[in-house]
Amino acid sequence: MGEPTRIRADLARNAAIDILVARGVPAVDASKVADALIAADLRGIDTHGLACLGDYVLALEEGRIAATPKFQVSQRFPWATRLDADNGLGPLAASEAMATAIASAETFGIGAAGVVRSNHFGAAGVYAAMAAERGCIGIVAANASAVAAPHGATRPLLGTNPLAVAVPAGRFAPLVLDMATSEGSRKKVRKALEDGREIPSGWALGPDGRPTTDPAEALKGVMLPFAGAKGSGLSLVVDILSGVLTGAEFGGRVLSVMTNQDRESGNGHFMLAFKVSAFIDEAEYSGRIETEIERLHALPAAAGFDAVTYPGERSARIRADRAAFGIPMTEARIATLVALGGGRLRPPVDA
Amino acid sequence: MGEPTRIRADLARNAAIDILVARGVPAVDASKVADALIAADLRGIDTHGLACLGDYVLALEEGRIAATPKFQVSQRFPWATRLDADNGLGPLAASEAMATAIASAETFGIGAAGVVRSNHFGAAGVYAAMAAERGCIGIVAANASAVAAPHGATRPLLGTNPLAVAVPAGRFAPLVLDMATSEGSRKKVRKALEDGREIPSGWALGPDGRPTTDPAEALKGVMLPFAGAKGSGLSLVVDILSGVLTGAEFGGRVLSVMTNQDRESGNGHFMLAFKVSAFIDEAEYSGRIETEIERLHALPAAAGFDAVTYPGERSARIRADRAAFGIPMTEARIATLVALGGGRLRPPVDA
Repeated sequence: MGEPTRIRADLARNAAIDILVARGVPAVDASKVADALIAADLRGIDTHGLACLGDYVLALEEGRIAATPKFQVSQRFPWATRLDADNGLGPLAASEAMATAIASAETFGIGAAGVVRSNHFGAAGVYAAMAAERGCIGIVAANASAVAAPHGATRPLLGTNPLAVAVPAGRFAPLVLDMATSEGSRKKVRKALEDGREIPSGWALGPDGRPTTDPAEALKGVMLPFAGAKGSGLSLVVDILSGVLTGAEFGGRVLSVMTNQDRESGNGHFMLAFKVSAFIDEAEYSGRIETEIERLHALPAAAGFDAVTYPGERSARIRADRAAFGIPMTEARIATLVALGGGRLRPPVDA
Repeated sequence: MGEPTRIRADLARNAAIDILVARGVPAVDASKVADALIAADLRGIDTHGLACLGDYVLALEEGRIAATPKFQVSQRFPWATRLDADNGLGPLAASEAMATAIASAETFGIGAAGVVRSNHFGAAGVYAAMAAERGCIGIVAANASAVAAPHGATRPLLGTNPLAVAVPAGRFAPLVLDMATSEGSRKKVRKALEDGREIPSGWALGPDGRPTTDPAEALKGVMLPFAGAKGSGLSLVVDILSGVLTGAEFGGRVLSVMTNQDRESGNGHFMLAFKVSAFIDEAEYSGRIETEIERLHALPAAAGFDAVTYPGERSARIRADRAAFGIPMTEARIATLVALGGGRLRPPVDA
């Protein structure tokens, strides 16, 4: 395998744009999608960055995602936007929706957007962070294809259903909490089976409907939301906000863009952004959040931890490193992107 | 001990009002506090209902909570209210704040309130449910005295920091998710020690900063937020919304009203309410949320569960029962309330 190669973010971005434009995505839209995916790669969320492009390209080529969607926007209040994404690329719809919510917040102090007929959108935290970079607290909820059984059930109804919250943090990088509300993934369970390891308790039920730590039993059973009833409740709330409230699919009916055939995936997103200055002077807020973080940093670290950090702190460090030195990619990842048409990923040989 | 006696909710309410009025709380304020506490008792949250009155009374008598606070209200946007509770009773401040947020939502589709200089407010779900009963999605966050170490730390910074979300549910009772973002309580750990049981993994660190299931070690160490990094992140976000953003105490500086002496507790609350009709017709929403719940109910139940339920469903059943047949109270609880001045709890002997 060897060491991963560092690919400059601007070159990776160009490659992503080329790949999408070659499938009929308008350049301006392709650049927004590339921005969202690269933002995930820069933050170290490698599974939700350019790694998604292969599936997106396949869906575009097979007509399961629209390359040139016509977004329909409507408003019942000046702060509340509904965006029909016309089965376009999820990152395009999501970044447009958060930009709209932030624009409302610039005028009214608050903005929200409900997105329907969207698709897989990558990393929720990327859109929440857009708000924090504009002096707003940002909240993002999105539903996804059913993988987890609600607390007390033995059949899936809930997806990974990510929930992200970002808050400005003064001189520190924004706090970005970005979490799946499902516990483990079946992929991790299969890995545990291969490695001969048990899975953590709370991840899955066996086929008998009882909790199991045996990966083989888990694969015959069902995955769970995180943290029992609490996580299950949060995951359900995410489905209600992003699906029931917006008008998108919900309750286990969102499909995966990797496998859908007969109809659109139907993902829904919910975005909220409000100015901290709606409640407190921005300078005072900055001083207070910095104090909060300083108090956190001053705590003694537990066994196995170098330091006490806040959500998004590690990602911000990774981003600084990757922005300066490039995004690490394996040769296999690079070859895939080049094969998809991303040759601009590599600087010219004579550079 | 014997069977608990059922006390009619209106009599319990009268008793609570009498108890508070006798400590100088104006009748109109006392009735609001009584409403909030009785609402918790009716929903089966016995620890956050009239059980709180003893501590409130002591704090009122000792002047640690103001009996006749002068609330100061200000707004930077018509939807955003800041309420300085002047160290008054928490349930009074919280119900006033949510009522204000709902009133804003009636006009603008959305309303929020940040509360400072408050105190322990009882059950977060009670205030979130106020929003759901008015066609709004309600979110409540509140901070509390430090009991739990953030993920990766060995000293407390975070409180129980409750987070509640309530959503209207059509012909079903509102969904009310009401959760502490700390995992267990030291009270439960002491009980486990008495009973000779281990505590669940994830509840606490021992004095060596390592996870422990030994209650004796846990009592020498520190409690944790729920669900590792995810719950810790949520708990921190609750502190930021309710404390940093509002202008209240935060970062481990909120005091417990049971123990504070030198200064106010300084609790902060954050409340958000927005109309579902800001995004979708109310009738369409009702049909969709009913479908969501029907799909949930149709799932097969896991081992140990009678049925699959949504958050707040069980509480709604308890409320129906208790509203009809009274709130069960032990003789000790009744005696305490009578001793505090709540004699109206019992119907006259000749009734």
